[in-house]
Amino acid sequence: MPRALVVRRTHFNAAHRLHNPARSDAWNRETFGPCNNPNYHGHNYEVELQVEGEIDPETGYVVDVGHLKALFDAHVHAVLDHRNLNLDVPWFAERLPSAENIAVFIWEQIAPRVPAGRLVRVRLWETPRNYVEYEGG
Amino acid sequence: MPRALVVRRTHFNAAHRLHNPARSDAWNRETFGPCNNPNYHGHNYEVELQVEGEIDPETGYVVDVGHLKALFDAHVHAVLDHRNLNLDVPWFAERLPSAENIAVFIWEQIAPRVPAGRLVRVRLWETPRNYVEYEGG
Amino acid sequence: MPRALVVRRTHFNAAHRLHNPARSDAWNRETFGPCNNPNYHGHNYEVELQVEGEIDPETGYVVDVGHLKALFDAHVHAVLDHRNLNLDVPWFAERLPSAENIAVFIWEQIAPRVPAGRLVRVRLWETPRNYVEYEGG
Amino acid sequence: MPRALVVRRTHFNAAHRLHNPARSDAWNRETFGPCNNPNYHGHNYEVELQVEGEIDPETGYVVDVGHLKALFDAHVHAVLDHRNLNLDVPWFAERLPSAENIAVFIWEQIAPRVPAGRLVRVRLWETPRNYVEYEGG
Amino acid sequence: MPRALVVRRTHFNAAHRLHNPARSDAWNRETFGPCNNPNYHGHNYEVELQVEGEIDPETGYVVDVGHLKALFDAHVHAVLDHRNLNLDVPWFAERLPSAENIAVFIWEQIAPRVPAGRLVRVRLWETPRNYVEYEGG
Amino acid sequence: MPRALVVRRTHFNAAHRLHNPARSDAWNRETFGPCNNPNYHGHNYEVELQVEGEIDPETGYVVDVGHLKALFDAHVHAVLDHRNLNLDVPWFAERLPSAENIAVFIWEQIAPRVPAGRLVRVRLWETPRNYVEYEGG
Repeated sequence: MPRALVVRRTHFNAAHRLHNPARSDAWNRETFGPCNNPNYHGHNYEVELQVEGEIDPETGYVVDVGHLKALFDAHVHAVLDHRNLNLDVPWFAERLPSAENIAVFIWEQIAPRVPAGRLVRVRLWETPRNYVEYEGG
Repeated sequence: MPRALVVRRTHFNAAHRLHNPARSDAWNRETFGPCNNPNYHGHNYEVELQVEGEIDPETGYVVDVGHLKALFDAHVHAVLDHRNLNLDVPWFAERLPSAENIAVFIWEQIAPRVPAGRLVRVRLWETPRNYVEYEGG
Repeated sequence: MPRALVVRRTHFNAAHRLHNPARSDAWNRETFGPCNNPNYHGHNYEVELQVEGEIDPETGYVVDVGHLKALFDAHVHAVLDHRNLNLDVPWFAERLPSAENIAVFIWEQIAPRVPAGRLVRVRLWETPRNYVEYEGG
Repeated sequence: MPRALVVRRTHFNAAHRLHNPARSDAWNRETFGPCNNPNYHGHNYEVELQVEGEIDPETGYVVDVGHLKALFDAHVHAVLDHRNLNLDVPWFAERLPSAENIAVFIWEQIAPRVPAGRLVRVRLWETPRNYVEYEGG
Repeated sequence: MPRALVVRRTHFNAAHRLHNPARSDAWNRETFGPCNNPNYHGHNYEVELQVEGEIDPETGYVVDVGHLKALFDAHVHAVLDHRNLNLDVPWFAERLPSAENIAVFIWEQIAPRVPAGRLVRVRLWETPRNYVEYEGG
Repeated sequence: MPRALVVRRTHFNAAHRLHNPARSDAWNRETFGPCNNPNYHGHNYEVELQVEGEIDPETGYVVDVGHLKALFDAHVHAVLDHRNLNLDVPWFAERLPSAENIAVFIWEQIAPRVPAGRLVRVRLWETPRNYVEYEGG
């Protein structure tokens, strides 16, 4: 049975600020630079959900990418889009809302719900010039 | 003398919120939807500065696009990048930080300072799916 | 009152064939080349709706781009997406489904329904390498 | 000897329909939604051929990407471009023309013909929002 | 008769250097910075040919974009691609090979040869971050 | 401790020529085609630096991508940008300046200097249509 990887790209936008409350203001300013601005800044995040599995001979699909989009809309977009990650999303109360950690968050929402195949990678662009990939724990 | 248009593309990112304090909360929620979220959201803004003029036979340039980038960095990026447009930028105290108005702001900073040719258009992407153009008053 | 142009980008995909039944098969093959293939081929069409008007000081908007997207979904996407333009869309019974004519079709659906400002241009990509613009009759 | 991956991107466009004749019309409509439309729809497919191997010290190349483009034109573009995958391409008589299966088809045409290095991946975009990767059986 | 604009995008790459031999080396270094490097540098140029005219009811075309591509290949690509603009292209013996002047060169080659409609604009990207437009004398 | 990959994209442009002086002119012309043009040609190179490592719980970062950009500017951009790779960069005196070898050069400059995590891949686009990846010796 041939195997393939299928990818659905989608997006959300949000405000955030990088600030570690366990460290001094000076450490935060030096470590995070303008990303530490007290009043937040924001990004258009672009996301890829990458699922690997067998191609089902009845459908030609590994998984219906429309299903991946519906999972994203219900479990990620509904929670993150047009939100302030620091103030509005409890998951980030204990973690910095860096691109790395946002990718971990998306993985945790999507991985257990993929109906066929297996989520193998979340790719997240914070800007057109930088992105991260997370492949699970 | 042949004339041409020259364009420099650059970018910044920021948080904002659309909220008209002269109107009710209900009006704001209905008019702006998720863009009215109280804790802000944000975008990667992409900007084009478009300058029209004669091609100088000594340089082959209408204007040095490196000069346009330097103007943008000094007069726009330094003021808007990694900022909250509502809270950190006085110009938006009396205007909604919509894409339309941000383009007007950029025009006002750049137009009087272009050293050769004339600024004829600011194009501003708020997301990869929507943009605005402003050509001056 | 400052004026601006606002643009919403969206997309659909469809099959089509270029064939003029009033001309010979030889003329059609020579004129349209592989675009004349009897069993159709297809494209991912990308569309920009461009609306010009005054910036409303109460909203900062020329027009809500979400409204433009809703008009597109109801009056264009619902009719063209995942369709065969030649067989499924009556408007093309008398016109060739070229990119030029598809742009005219989209104009006719959207222009009379824009709630603020005025539709000034439809831009339509047939492939990443060619596009058309239509500005009305 | 250092090894590298080299990639050539190219494209074709085609019409297709997802329909499994062994299942009921109701099953097909529910499974494939608008992709099941009887009169076909279509896409601009973007393709990457990814070849891994040693860098030849005489040329600096793993493989000449111009050679990969020539293989694609002769063995894929000539067969799929401006065609109806269901009606015009015998390979799809027994397989659904999903993105996954189109990637398998391209692999089978290109893998045995690569003159240096080894084809390790075919990446195929069906739209700018979804793609698949196939790495062989 | 409806009118439209049709655009074909294509590309070439070349080496160049900005240096005005009528001026001193110091003036050249200050004016052109790294673009004055004696041993040349280079770019992937992306080009759009934009033609405006009536939509021919027999074809649905303003002009066949395949024809525009063929004109580009014969009269621009054949002369500029994989060349040194300063050393290999006589037209630039008396003009600086700036993006502005390259657009003028392309206009002169294409405008008199367009078979239907009229060339109204050449758009030329020197990098993904800067481009020029030329609309004729 | 969760691990992730972080990527910073940047760019430079340069002139080059593919020519192996140990072989005949005829062999060079046949092997490299227009890339063998004696007077050089050039490209806008786009580069991705990909670093893998543990996410630091104090910062949410694998590595600060601003640090990667600074390393690139100091050790790659300063040496390659607006240069002739054949004439101006001693590293290429003994190696052909193919995309493959340029990726090896970038790896050698960056890999030993990454302050956290480990450089796992350099991706280098020579044009929007071809790229290479190098993962170290």
